[in-house]
Amino acid sequence: MTLVLGGARSGKSRYAEALIEAVPGPWLYLATAQAWDDEMRARIALHRERRPEGWSTQDVPLALAQAVAAAHGPVLVDCLTLWLTNVMLAEADLPAAVDGLLDACAAARGPLVLVGNEVGLGIVPDNALGRRFRDEAGRLHQRLAHQADRVVFMVAGLPLTVKPSPENPGASA
Amino acid sequence: MTLVLGGARSGKSRYAEALIEAVPGPWLYLATAQAWDDEMRARIALHRERRPEGWSTQDVPLALAQAVAAAHGPVLVDCLTLWLTNVMLAEADLPAAVDGLLDACAAARGPLVLVGNEVGLGIVPDNALGRRFRDEAGRLHQRLAHQADRVVFMVAGLPLTVKPSPENPGASA
Amino acid sequence: MTLVLGGARSGKSRYAEALIEAVPGPWLYLATAQAWDDEMRARIALHRERRPEGWSTQDVPLALAQAVAAAHGPVLVDCLTLWLTNVMLAEADLPAAVDGLLDACAAARGPLVLVGNEVGLGIVPDNALGRRFRDEAGRLHQRLAHQADRVVFMVAGLPLTVKPSPENPGASA
Repeated sequence: MTLVLGGARSGKSRYAEALIEAVPGPWLYLATAQAWDDEMRARIALHRERRPEGWSTQDVPLALAQAVAAAHGPVLVDCLTLWLTNVMLAEADLPAAVDGLLDACAAARGPLVLVGNEVGLGIVPDNALGRRFRDEAGRLHQRLAHQADRVVFMVAGLPLTVKPSPENPGASA
Repeated sequence: MTLVLGGARSGKSRYAEALIEAVPGPWLYLATAQAWDDEMRARIALHRERRPEGWSTQDVPLALAQAVAAAHGPVLVDCLTLWLTNVMLAEADLPAAVDGLLDACAAARGPLVLVGNEVGLGIVPDNALGRRFRDEAGRLHQRLAHQADRVVFMVAGLPLTVKPSPENPGASA
Repeated sequence: MTLVLGGARSGKSRYAEALIEAVPGPWLYLATAQAWDDEMRARIALHRERRPEGWSTQDVPLALAQAVAAAHGPVLVDCLTLWLTNVMLAEADLPAAVDGLLDACAAARGPLVLVGNEVGLGIVPDNALGRRFRDEAGRLHQRLAHQADRVVFMVAGLPLTVKPSPENPGASA
């Protein structure tokens, strides 16, 4: 299990896709984005086209834990941030959803790569929802990072290893 | 002297507490948070409860340099960002306050860990106070980092060493 | 070619200046800031005064690629973020401008250091221009980082190596 964190447009998705494609497929893409408008639909279509043969895509705006639990091969979750947004907007039981995701990740049968947006490094947001979201995203990332075998922080498309893989502790990327 | 930087909910306080608890106590917690409302009071109370026996807490919204100077054992300052906010809101002499803090840190008699929020990695704030705060926080962190023996940047609860300890230059965390 | 990324007041400019001053001069400072008001004029004047003898400064709010292409010795570009802002505000052809800059950097005859602000690590901006700017800045940084020999991420005045120099792969800073 690898956690790929980074800012907007830091190359997280590309890097995560390359990690998964390094193991034999078929590969499962768990997409948490919801197409609210045409701009979003176009962006999602573009992402799908970029991926080569061998990928199947499943839309899981909310039922992410169930999809991870049901998967058998290599899985890419892109991204945690949109899933968290969806859970908060649906006014679902957030602590239960997070616990469920952690359990499903721990029990995953194949390689698992999760992508998340780091959002806590700017000035304090001026609205309460922004502050709450930032807090929940930080807590979720901490719990997943604790459980992950490897954690990287992306800067301009380049991975900075924050938690080295136990099998390959000397690797800097 | 160790400087622990990181975003919101990046695990800075927990990591800093663990650093201090690794040396023999009693330990002094210099808390800069001011309880403006019930939410803040609850948050501060929760932080206090989390800390084990052996900690004493002193509230220093402004007189941080004096408290550091008066301490004899291991000290945790949590956090610099709220202290800076308090100094700016009090319209106190900021350059003098910062110089005083730097001097007190340089003269500290025991291990000293300071926690600060990294706030300069988002989009430019749209209000002048936000921009000024971001500039002052960045300058304060640079001066403290220059003086510190060790600087870490927290990502999802994991420390990334930015300035390695001179006693242990090979340690990556 | 070295890319120096970091947040506001993270010590990017000072670090970049020191990198350039480590090679024999004269050194060329390509300044992209535009003095819109007195505060900005004062800030630019301060920056100029800080630089020692041996520097010449050229103001290039837009024609950055041409200036890089025309240079013969060591060049510092400070900063990419303001240049990108200027190109977007001028409603110039952004993709062509970025391609031109990448080509000029690839063909540079002397050492080249570029400074950029990392702006993608906060909460999603609430306005469309902010979101678009954040996306374009991230894309530009990724392309330059891919091409650069070395990339550093500044934290509190300290360089964290994200892409090590090929001549000196063991250096951590």
